[in-house]
Amino acid sequence: MEIIIKPRREEYQVLLQRPHKGAADLNALVSSVLEDVKKRGDAAIREYELKFDHVQLHDLQVTDAEICQAASLLKDELKDAIHSAHENIARFHQAQRMKTIQVETAPGVFCSQKSVPIQKVGLYIPGGTAPLFSTVLMLATPARIAGCQEIILCSPPDSHGQLHPAILYAAKVAGVNRIYKCGGVQAIGAMAYGTESIPRVSKIFGPGNQFVTCAKQHVSLHDVAIDMPAGPSEVAIIADKSANPVFVAADMLSQAEHGRDSQAVLFTDSEILAHKVVSEAERQLAQLSRKELAEDSLSYSRIFVLKDINESFDICNEYAPEHLIIAMDDAINWADKVINAGSVFLGHYSCESAGDYASGTNHTLPTSGYAKAYSGVNLDSFCRKITFQNLTADGIRSIGRTVELMAEAEGLDAHRNAMTYRINKVTSKS
Amino acid sequence: MEIIIKPRREEYQVLLQRPHKGAADLNALVSSVLEDVKKRGDAAIREYELKFDHVQLHDLQVTDAEICQAASLLKDELKDAIHSAHENIARFHQAQRMKTIQVETAPGVFCSQKSVPIQKVGLYIPGGTAPLFSTVLMLATPARIAGCQEIILCSPPDSHGQLHPAILYAAKVAGVNRIYKCGGVQAIGAMAYGTESIPRVSKIFGPGNQFVTCAKQHVSLHDVAIDMPAGPSEVAIIADKSANPVFVAADMLSQAEHGRDSQAVLFTDSEILAHKVVSEAERQLAQLSRKELAEDSLSYSRIFVLKDINESFDICNEYAPEHLIIAMDDAINWADKVINAGSVFLGHYSCESAGDYASGTNHTLPTSGYAKAYSGVNLDSFCRKITFQNLTADGIRSIGRTVELMAEAEGLDAHRNAMTYRINKVTSKS
Repeated sequence: MEIIIKPRREEYQVLLQRPHKGAADLNALVSSVLEDVKKRGDAAIREYELKFDHVQLHDLQVTDAEICQAASLLKDELKDAIHSAHENIARFHQAQRMKTIQVETAPGVFCSQKSVPIQKVGLYIPGGTAPLFSTVLMLATPARIAGCQEIILCSPPDSHGQLHPAILYAAKVAGVNRIYKCGGVQAIGAMAYGTESIPRVSKIFGPGNQFVTCAKQHVSLHDVAIDMPAGPSEVAIIADKSANPVFVAADMLSQAEHGRDSQAVLFTDSEILAHKVVSEAERQLAQLSRKELAEDSLSYSRIFVLKDINESFDICNEYAPEHLIIAMDDAINWADKVINAGSVFLGHYSCESAGDYASGTNHTLPTSGYAKAYSGVNLDSFCRKITFQNLTADGIRSIGRTVELMAEAEGLDAHRNAMTYRINKVTSKS
Repeated sequence: MEIIIKPRREEYQVLLQRPHKGAADLNALVSSVLEDVKKRGDAAIREYELKFDHVQLHDLQVTDAEICQAASLLKDELKDAIHSAHENIARFHQAQRMKTIQVETAPGVFCSQKSVPIQKVGLYIPGGTAPLFSTVLMLATPARIAGCQEIILCSPPDSHGQLHPAILYAAKVAGVNRIYKCGGVQAIGAMAYGTESIPRVSKIFGPGNQFVTCAKQHVSLHDVAIDMPAGPSEVAIIADKSANPVFVAADMLSQAEHGRDSQAVLFTDSEILAHKVVSEAERQLAQLSRKELAEDSLSYSRIFVLKDINESFDICNEYAPEHLIIAMDDAINWADKVINAGSVFLGHYSCESAGDYASGTNHTLPTSGYAKAYSGVNLDSFCRKITFQNLTADGIRSIGRTVELMAEAEGLDAHRNAMTYRINKVTSKS
């Protein structure tokens, strides 16, 4: 972990550079798998599942029996934890419901904006050693609250053709309608184009490796919406001398264990804290099961010692972190200084893992500086805002002439005529 | 205009097909221009302006003097119209402001969601014969209300190096900070990467031809957010026997004049209305200045005569039109049947051109069926929702164990540790 003392503002951009992504061009491979799924449907899915997940599948859909059985395979305390997290996530996302907005913008011109759920959504949950059942809760819970009619989930099966019981259990708790054993690029293709077994959806959510990310971007160009561009996870911490170095080091490590390209960055005005965090991180690192991974990732981590806390916020807003922990006694008073971040953790007890699992906020967040333009997943991600307008005869009198003049100035006669016919009708009546 | 009587449900998909887009592969050309702008900045911009817009530019930025002069070049009644439209648009988008949401999701766990403006946004306004100053209002007005710090606008100059005065005037009224003479792919590149003159932005908005659209998609993969995928404009009309065929025909024509690939579709339960609309459209067409264009586009238009109005809504939701006019006496009572549409026009006096210019709703809307997953531009398009969480010692007691259990089950030790250290601290205190 490199400590950088009082960098100049011109250096920010270079110093804030994120670990380089593998520049491998996956486009050709990804396109060919997607095309194949589009053309051959389930047959292609089964072939790729054999090839990539080493499993011969007959039915792609998880049966009710399998879902029931999942419950019996999990310890009660984990099931309770899943329910408890689900409740908090539901509570926070329920509060995000938007009321219909109605405004009479001019006499007789009534405009409204209404939130309507996306009808069909697809959730992708990666496989691998760690079953990301928390992400199931984070995606399916708001989808269900939004009122999406069809919520499907795709996840790669293990070599026995099974999904992890915690994924199945979380999916049932959060209200997923149908679950499919299907992973990688082929799963994204299935949800984008539809196959005999797997229905086409209008929007795809969820994390994945670089192949899945590339596939999501590919299908997003013409076929389906996606949640957001994905990149390696990251945390920034702004801390002053009130911070607890044990907590700060633990938070940096909990980011580092995600993967080699994860990044943890500390901005502080206290050089003493900086050194304490470095030695504490070394101590904690030694005890981790994912030690090597975290060690590697920690080499990308940086500690910036800055003139003051204000400057810490400036540089942090430039970085636009996915997660931002403000480890200060008066963190709440500084919250308004946050301009670019995905999710913010205020105060010494608010660790990132609280939000990763159970505080209620969503953990699907913009990485790679995308927080400058994107929100994390929230209730709105599963809805569209449709506008309505209703003009009375008075409304025609209010804005009719304005519309005629503007349409004319834009050279659009038929646009003007559509209004002129109405003006004539209203005038002939009055 | 083809009339289709009582199609079977299985035929919907084929019958609802939109006019084919030019399948030309623009990727190679677009990438090379973007790369060049990235590398050479202003010098590249000037070269492409000479090549594509046939103009030798020195300064790219429009001067204050030019903006002032624009006002003197426009008729007062058009300026009044621009102000009036701006007021209505402002009124409707102001009402869309989101209040910060705060919830105690569990004892001692305080979560909030706050809307924060995107700091830097770029608006693209196409050139051509018709100056789209209405689109300037539609994009800049909500950007200003949202509180974006930097709102820049790029638009291609004419062969004298000038932008249309109505574009400059609308930009000033709506609060654009800086305006640049720059169009096409090079403008998208400039806003995505930044040049010496033109600042880099975080999100690009606005319509454009297929080159601009391709460039926006290209930069959206890695560099910047965009408003939405773009396609040819379209309108669907649901009408019963109460509809006025003069109005319906005028509305279809006002769509048709947009371009050869625009589409107007009518869904009705009245065969009599269908025939009246066809003959009325022919009559009105003869009088249009853009007659040939509209005639061409009208050949893509279809009239569906359906069993009843319910079926009209079913097929229309399948089509997911950008604009939907409900031309019925009791249109308001049917509004809740709309599931997929960009913007909806209720009743006989609510023509699309009212919303295109001055009702207050936004006219930048999802086309090509994207209304199934995307909203039109609205205040939110210029904001991000940032979440905050603050845990007290009680909060740790509420959810600490849940977090530990879930992190452990996902195999993430360091995530668990970050919570365990805090639990220990809280326990040792109490």
